[in-house]
Amino acid sequence: MAEDAGETQQVLAGLRVLEIGHFVAAPFATRILADLGADIIKVEPPEGDPARQWGEQIDGKSLWWSMHARGKRSITVNLKHPKARELILSLVPHCDAVIENFRPGQLAKLGLSPETLRTARPDLIVAHISGYGQTGPYRDRAAFGVIGEAIGGLRYLTDHPPGTVDLPPVRVGVSVGDSVSGLYAALGVLAALWQRDRAAGDGRGRTIDVALTESMLSLMEGMLPEYGALGKVKQPGGGGIATAAPTNAYPSADGAWILIAANSEPLFARLMTLIGRTDLIGAPGYDGNQQRVANSATLDALIGDWSRQHSATALVALLEQADIPSSKVYTAADIAADPQYRARGMVREVADPGFDRPVLHGGVVPHMVGDPDAVRWAGPAIGTHTGEVLGELLGLDDAAIAALRRDGVI
Amino acid sequence: MAEDAGETQQVLAGLRVLEIGHFVAAPFATRILADLGADIIKVEPPEGDPARQWGEQIDGKSLWWSMHARGKRSITVNLKHPKARELILSLVPHCDAVIENFRPGQLAKLGLSPETLRTARPDLIVAHISGYGQTGPYRDRAAFGVIGEAIGGLRYLTDHPPGTVDLPPVRVGVSVGDSVSGLYAALGVLAALWQRDRAAGDGRGRTIDVALTESMLSLMEGMLPEYGALGKVKQPGGGGIATAAPTNAYPSADGAWILIAANSEPLFARLMTLIGRTDLIGAPGYDGNQQRVANSATLDALIGDWSRQHSATALVALLEQADIPSSKVYTAADIAADPQYRARGMVREVADPGFDRPVLHGGVVPHMVGDPDAVRWAGPAIGTHTGEVLGELLGLDDAAIAALRRDGVI
Repeated sequence: MAEDAGETQQVLAGLRVLEIGHFVAAPFATRILADLGADIIKVEPPEGDPARQWGEQIDGKSLWWSMHARGKRSITVNLKHPKARELILSLVPHCDAVIENFRPGQLAKLGLSPETLRTARPDLIVAHISGYGQTGPYRDRAAFGVIGEAIGGLRYLTDHPPGTVDLPPVRVGVSVGDSVSGLYAALGVLAALWQRDRAAGDGRGRTIDVALTESMLSLMEGMLPEYGALGKVKQPGGGGIATAAPTNAYPSADGAWILIAANSEPLFARLMTLIGRTDLIGAPGYDGNQQRVANSATLDALIGDWSRQHSATALVALLEQADIPSSKVYTAADIAADPQYRARGMVREVADPGFDRPVLHGGVVPHMVGDPDAVRWAGPAIGTHTGEVLGELLGLDDAAIAALRRDGVI
Repeated sequence: MAEDAGETQQVLAGLRVLEIGHFVAAPFATRILADLGADIIKVEPPEGDPARQWGEQIDGKSLWWSMHARGKRSITVNLKHPKARELILSLVPHCDAVIENFRPGQLAKLGLSPETLRTARPDLIVAHISGYGQTGPYRDRAAFGVIGEAIGGLRYLTDHPPGTVDLPPVRVGVSVGDSVSGLYAALGVLAALWQRDRAAGDGRGRTIDVALTESMLSLMEGMLPEYGALGKVKQPGGGGIATAAPTNAYPSADGAWILIAANSEPLFARLMTLIGRTDLIGAPGYDGNQQRVANSATLDALIGDWSRQHSATALVALLEQADIPSSKVYTAADIAADPQYRARGMVREVADPGFDRPVLHGGVVPHMVGDPDAVRWAGPAIGTHTGEVLGELLGLDDAAIAALRRDGVI
């Protein structure tokens, strides 16, 4: 990046968070905090977070893990061992916050409810992430990302308009239910920390209760107000927008998709000129957005007939020249090659001792201008930092750590 | 909610943020902060934020706006007026942070760069949200939510597998590019505030640079590591998951979709028993997840043939009875009627003087347990709080405010 890194520290330097999480949501929350400089202590069972088995592996090591757990310290604790509770409670006074995503009540059953955790540190921040939340009639139901997306309203909308195809609404392709709820948890922790730690603040610990379903619902814009007042049930719009035309994704000769948004009068005129259909400018059925919306299927078909004759590269150049808002629908390959992402450190190689070559990572979001911009290390092997953390925070020596290991506590 | 509200204040009480934003991303960031108790001063042009025209209207008033601008104070400032700069700079010392989402450089052109803003308050936090970010070769390109989703990799994945249908990848139906970048901006502001305001902190103002494209990219899980190491280009999976079967959305007799995830051995056996195909349990082609993935199209078709014979309500009951993870794909109507959402205050009526009845809103995310849980007021009319804010913060009297209004500054 063009920014001057100066001599500042990262924005979350000095913050320590204990993660008792697994899979996606809680680890996503702590990845964001780690990227901004927090010290994350991730508690894993001795066999590791099950997410280590997900996705493509090289020699039994997950590529996703390299990014998902980067910048965190991994310690193993067997939470089912009778001595585990005591060990966790001895770590808590050294931590500002705990983030967890077990089923509601599960940590309490292990003797680690927020109230118990606060006996060890009264002003501790505790964030729970779960499918439906910690209260209410559905709190005990199992849920994962895809359920959160369905109950939150997102899945219904990722579809072609009713009657178009005989196929189910599609998945977004990544677990946005998990990552967005992770973002809300991280945001809630930071809000609570600010109020706790500022001079005029209230000094209190707080408990944060994030549900996957609710995190999705919070993105649904006017869906509820419009349903409540008008009984309008928001419908999926396929590749387009129900209230504007033409705007959609159109196919290229080489199998890519190009977004084109030409739904104003001047943009429509420029697009029709480009595709050689000046006869439609101001013509009945195409005069004004409202008429075009009524004829959007016909319009999309004829734009598609044109776009299919050109490669993606040619289309992007032609549309840019005509000053029509457009962009290629990026694949992983497009993202990796994009000069803007590279210029801003958003696609970068990160050294990872688990692999014989650096691993391609996404960068840090949000950019904190002037802060050191560093991915400190790649996702560690199981328990890499157990000895280091227990020594540093609890003052345990090698013999004491060996005893815990022998007893099966760590 | 079952929680005891106690006598505490909301977590962001005492925080004041100036929003110089429009449309979705910056206003979404400030909606989240307002929901948690911050004092948001939203600067609007005298004709109002263009988002006030979006979506369904009643008597010229937007239903979405009721929720999008709730809990904020609206003041009008004509930023193009020569005296506007001075007015904004006089407000800044009273604010902790500024959040804006104009094109990169536009506020600087108005004399309101972060550096200038910090002449008025040296430790001010400034968050920018833009399509591609404040730096790099594409920084000046126009972008909006849908472009961010395309460049970030999300749009390519919201599709049926290549070759399935001759239709474009679908939009998610809401502007997740905008809302997720708003979340990152709010999170960045809180991180910077914590480091600025805590006793051991660095006391510095920081500038935060959030891009829509990058906010989307940050959710792409293993996409980049797997592409970098193996050249694997992540592909869309339609309604299913490329590595597990059966798991998909299946149609009901009454036109709804039901998610069913039965991709383990016991779940598959239970599902086949339920649909009367015990002959397939352990049969060649269906024995183990790997075989089922290879036959997932056939499997989805026969599960769909069964599901089409039952109503959504019947399917949900049958699947629950058989203990198979499932859920209806919720529409707006399902969400509004859901007992869990109602129990947790996530679907609620909010009084709004702009309408003759209360407006249906989504609730506050994240839940801060024990904090007062209140949507303080619905989205205000343009400039509702201009006089109040200028009086309270700047000590201007009615005559001074009338003069600013006469001069066209506010």
